[in-house]
Amino acid sequence: MLSPPHQPRCLLAVALGRAGVGRGRPLPPDFVEALRAVVGAPNVSTAMAVREQHGHDESMHTCAPPDAVVWPQAVGQVQELAALCYRCRVPMVPFGTGTGLEGGVNAVQGGVCFDLSRMDAIAELSLEDFSVAVEPGVTRKALNSHLRGTGLWFPVDPGADASLCGMAATGASGTNAVRYGTMRPNVLNLRVVLPDGRLLHTAGPGRQPRKRAAGYDLTSLFVGSEGTLGFLTQATLRLHPLPEAVAVTTATFPSVRAAVACTVQVLQAAVPVARIEFLDEVMVGACSRFSGLELPAAATLLLELHGSRHSLAEQQRQEIVQLNGGSGLAWAEEPEERGRLWAMRHSAWYAALALRPGCQGYSTDVCVPISRLPDVVVETKQDLQDSGLTGPMVGHVGDGNFHCLLIFDAQDPAEAQRVHTFTQRLGRRALAAGGTCTGEHGVGLGKRALLLEELGQEGLDTLCRIKAALDPHNLMNPGKVL
Amino acid sequence: MLSPPHQPRCLLAVALGRAGVGRGRPLPPDFVEALRAVVGAPNVSTAMAVREQHGHDESMHTCAPPDAVVWPQAVGQVQELAALCYRCRVPMVPFGTGTGLEGGVNAVQGGVCFDLSRMDAIAELSLEDFSVAVEPGVTRKALNSHLRGTGLWFPVDPGADASLCGMAATGASGTNAVRYGTMRPNVLNLRVVLPDGRLLHTAGPGRQPRKRAAGYDLTSLFVGSEGTLGFLTQATLRLHPLPEAVAVTTATFPSVRAAVACTVQVLQAAVPVARIEFLDEVMVGACSRFSGLELPAAATLLLELHGSRHSLAEQQRQEIVQLNGGSGLAWAEEPEERGRLWAMRHSAWYAALALRPGCQGYSTDVCVPISRLPDVVVETKQDLQDSGLTGPMVGHVGDGNFHCLLIFDAQDPAEAQRVHTFTQRLGRRALAAGGTCTGEHGVGLGKRALLLEELGQEGLDTLCRIKAALDPHNLMNPGKVL
Repeated sequence: MLSPPHQPRCLLAVALGRAGVGRGRPLPPDFVEALRAVVGAPNVSTAMAVREQHGHDESMHTCAPPDAVVWPQAVGQVQELAALCYRCRVPMVPFGTGTGLEGGVNAVQGGVCFDLSRMDAIAELSLEDFSVAVEPGVTRKALNSHLRGTGLWFPVDPGADASLCGMAATGASGTNAVRYGTMRPNVLNLRVVLPDGRLLHTAGPGRQPRKRAAGYDLTSLFVGSEGTLGFLTQATLRLHPLPEAVAVTTATFPSVRAAVACTVQVLQAAVPVARIEFLDEVMVGACSRFSGLELPAAATLLLELHGSRHSLAEQQRQEIVQLNGGSGLAWAEEPEERGRLWAMRHSAWYAALALRPGCQGYSTDVCVPISRLPDVVVETKQDLQDSGLTGPMVGHVGDGNFHCLLIFDAQDPAEAQRVHTFTQRLGRRALAAGGTCTGEHGVGLGKRALLLEELGQEGLDTLCRIKAALDPHNLMNPGKVL
Repeated sequence: MLSPPHQPRCLLAVALGRAGVGRGRPLPPDFVEALRAVVGAPNVSTAMAVREQHGHDESMHTCAPPDAVVWPQAVGQVQELAALCYRCRVPMVPFGTGTGLEGGVNAVQGGVCFDLSRMDAIAELSLEDFSVAVEPGVTRKALNSHLRGTGLWFPVDPGADASLCGMAATGASGTNAVRYGTMRPNVLNLRVVLPDGRLLHTAGPGRQPRKRAAGYDLTSLFVGSEGTLGFLTQATLRLHPLPEAVAVTTATFPSVRAAVACTVQVLQAAVPVARIEFLDEVMVGACSRFSGLELPAAATLLLELHGSRHSLAEQQRQEIVQLNGGSGLAWAEEPEERGRLWAMRHSAWYAALALRPGCQGYSTDVCVPISRLPDVVVETKQDLQDSGLTGPMVGHVGDGNFHCLLIFDAQDPAEAQRVHTFTQRLGRRALAAGGTCTGEHGVGLGKRALLLEELGQEGLDTLCRIKAALDPHNLMNPGKVL
C-alpha cells in the first residue's frame, strides 16, 4: 500500500526504464554459473528463502526478491560481477545490513543482489589524521568498538547498527547531526565500483585531505545516491575526538511550541549541544508504559552536551536551564546515569509498537526549517487525530527533522490506505513549509512522487541526466529514487 | 607561463571542446544587439578596456578577454541571456568580484562575460532558521555588515572580500574552516541558471531544511563547479551564532614539526578552536619588516578560540598552553588586541610582495593529511631553496592546507619557468602524500593536468560525463577544470 506504482516521471527516466531486464524476465542462461565462476559456488544463492530475506529492508514496502544473491569477498570480485551483469544487462542491487526504511534494497526489477557484508576490513586508521577506511561489512558499532581506547569515535548514529557504507549510500544522520553533521561531511573518500565494473575513487585513489576544491565533489554525489550510481565498497571516514565530558538532561514543556522555542534558544546561544531530541506526549506516555518509568506525559526534550569539563560546568548548565522555560531538569554525567535517560529515546520504536501489539510500524521522515517546526508538528498531530491513526512523534529537533512512528494494522486495507494518504499529506505539508520529504531515510521507493514535487521538473531532470550519464543502462538499483 | 596548453584529457572532453565557438571566432552578426535587447544598451559593453578588466582574476594567468560583457539586473535576464547564448553556441563566463586565484574568469574561448555584481539582494533572512539568501553581488563583508546586531554571522573567510556566490562556485574556505567548515556544508540551496536558460533550485524552489536525503546532492555538485555547470544566481546560506567569547594567541616553535604536532594535539583535545594558522619563519620575518613589529622569526601558530566565556576561561587556556610546547603565548580577548595579533596574518600577502618590490605573486594551494604535513612542508622549503625561489608560507594548518606565496619577476622567463615547475612538483608531492592539488582555490586553468593525476582516468571520466550531461555543448566557462 505504501509503494506507489513504479512509473518514471521524466523522459530520460522512461528511456532508462526500457533498458533494464525488467521484473520477472529470467536471468540469461548460464548466468548463475558465471556468477559462481567469479565468487565460488558457496557464495551464490538462488534459494527462495535467501532471496526473500534480501528482497526487503525494515520498511513496509512489499518484498521484491532478487533472482540471485552473491557474496563477493573482495573489491575485485565486485568489479568482475558488475562487469558480468553489465554485459548481460542484469540489474544490480547493493545490500548491506538491510536496515533501511524506504525499500532501498527491494529488487523491484529482479536481478542480482550483491550482499557486501563479508567485506569487512577496517584499514588505514590514522589517529593523527582522524580518519579510517571501512568496507561495507563494517557497522557503526563495530567501528566504534574498534576505536575504543584511541580517543576517537565516529559519531553519526541513525539508531540501527547499520553498515557505514550503507549509511553513506542513504545519506543517513540521526541524533548527533546537530553537532557532528550528517554522513556527507564525514565521508572523505569513497571507493566505488561503477556499473560497468570500473573502479572509481571519488577523491582520487588513496587520498584523504580534510578538504579539497579539485573538480566536482563526487564524494557528495555518491553519498545519498542510494545504490543507483554504483557500489560503495569502501568509505574513508572522518573521525572525531571523544568529548572530554558529556552531560545529559531532560526537560518537559507545556507545549510543542515551547519545546521548539527552547531548541532555537539553545542553538542561538552556541551551547555545545550534540543532541536535541524531541518526544511528544504520546511518545513519552508509550515509553513510560514500555519501560516502567514514571515520566510526565508532556512534550519533552532530551539534550546532550559534549565539551570540555569547563564548558559543561555548573554555571554553563545553569544558563541552559534558564534558557529553557522547561521544568524537571536533571543532569546526568556518568555513563550509567546518562544511559538511563537515553533508554527512553532508544526504546521509542519498540515502545511505539507496544501501543498496538501485532501491528506494524512505519516511520515518516520530513524535515523543515526550525521556524516552521511548531506549526508543522501541531498540524500533523491534528491530522493524526483526524485520520484516526496512532503515530507517536520523535524528532531530531535541532535539525527540524521529526518522525511519526505510525503503528497500523497492515492487514486492514482501509487503515493502510489512511497511512498512505497521511504520509503523502505530511510530505506535502513539509514541502509547503520549505522543507523536504526526507531528512535522513532517503527516497527509496516510497517518496519518488514527492521528490518531483520537492525538486520541480528541472531538478528531477537534472538528477535523471546524472543517472543516465553514470548508469546509461539503468542497471544500478533500478526503480529507486527516480 | 603558469597556463599549460588547454588540451582536454579525455574523449568526452575532446567532444566537448569541439562544440564551443572557440577563441577568436567572432560573435554571430547582430548578437550584441540581441544582448542589448535583453538588458538594455548601457548594460552591455564591448569596449576593450572593459573586456580586459573582465578577462582575468588576481592570478598570474594571461588575460583572456571575453567578446562582450553584460550586466544582468535580475535572474530572468540571466535566463534570457543564457538561452540566447545557448541558441547561438556562444561561450558564457560568470563573473563575480574577479578575486579568484586560478584564472576561473579568463575567457579562454571568448564569448560573453556575465558580470553578476549588480544583482545584490539579500533576502529571506531568518534568525530562527539561521539562514539567508544572497545574490551574486553580495560579498561576505557586505553580508556580515547586514547581519550586525542579529547575533549571527557567516564565518567562511577566504581572505578576499569575495562574492558569496563566487565563493560557492569556487568551493572556497579559509581560516575558519577548521571549526565552521568550507562553503559546501554552509550552502543550503542554490538558484542556478542552467546553460540553456532553465532555472534549477538545487534543493528545490524555496527550500532550506538544515539537512535532506532527497535524491543526489545537487547543491554539493554545484558548489566548487567553478562556473562550468551553470550560473549561481542566489545562494541560501547557513548562518552561525556569534561566539560569546573569542580569544586569540600566538606561539612560536623551534620547528615546523613542533608546530604541527601542537596542532594535532589541539585538535585531539577537542579544544573549541576556530582558526589555526601557521606562518613559517620567512613569512614571520616578512610580516615583521612590513608591519614594523618585532616578532621572533620562527615557525609560528596563530590560534583563535570561539566559545562560551566559561569554555575559554583561564584554566582551559592554561591546558592549551601546556599542550603547546611552544613559547611566547599571549592571549588577546578584546577586538582591538585580537586585531593586532591578526594584523600579521592579514598583511601576509602584501608583506610577501614587499620582499621583492616590483615583482608579482602567485599562491600555491596544496592540502595534505595532517600527519604528512611536516614532511611535505620541510621538503617544500628545501625545494624552494634549491629552486632559488622566494616563497614564504602560510597555512590553514588545522586542515592540512598551506600556501607558498611565490614572489617572482614575471618578466624573467627563466624564473617564471622555475615557478611553474616548482608548483607542479609541489602538486605532485601533495598527491604522493595522499593530498590534493587544491584545497580551496580551485582547479581553474592551472591545475587541470594535476587534476587528472589526482583523480585518475575513471575520476576524470566521471567528471567529464557529468559536464557533458549538464552542459552538452560545453558553453559554460569552457576550458576550466576539465
